[in-house]
Amino acid sequence: ARGFHARFVHSERMTLAFWRVIDGATLPTHAHPHEQVTTVRAGWFELTIGDETQLLGPGHVAVVPSGVPHSGRAVTACELVDAFAPARDEYR
Amino acid sequence: ARGFHARFVHSERMTLAFWRVIDGATLPTHAHPHEQVTTVRAGWFELTIGDETQLLGPGHVAVVPSGVPHSGRAVTACELVDAFAPARDEYR
Repeated sequence: ARGFHARFVHSERMTLAFWRVIDGATLPTHAHPHEQVTTVRAGWFELTIGDETQLLGPGHVAVVPSGVPHSGRAVTACELVDAFAPARDEYR
Repeated sequence: ARGFHARFVHSERMTLAFWRVIDGATLPTHAHPHEQVTTVRAGWFELTIGDETQLLGPGHVAVVPSGVPHSGRAVTACELVDAFAPARDEYR
């Protein structure tokens, strides 16, 4: 999505994505079979998982279960780390 | 191991461990079937994977494949994040 820039690291069963997100960038609602664990390293990110919206700040962690629609918005510029399992082979 | 303190977050297929490690703490050589991706958030950590030793600092990432013996030593106090797949059910 526009305003999202990642560095990816892959293992056999996981992908880690280290994101830098510009203030105000939005991630449209989408879903994937990969589980996702999102950690905020810096800044604030509003994440909606299913019908629940939460504001995540430094040190906060959220789990997106397999197949659940989710979307997001950078409330400030932020740095996020997503861990995915299985690996996101489309990003290799 | 002594000097390692973690907060764990589990999903179905992953465990994330957020470690605070005291200066000089050592992790004896061990192995587990879970893949491990280690990220350094702060400080310096010497990680040996198989017969290769690397010094990891802020932003560095290392992958420990399934079953490979590894050990470590905190060269300074540090903060690490380990992502494991499958989940480490013994830490739930």
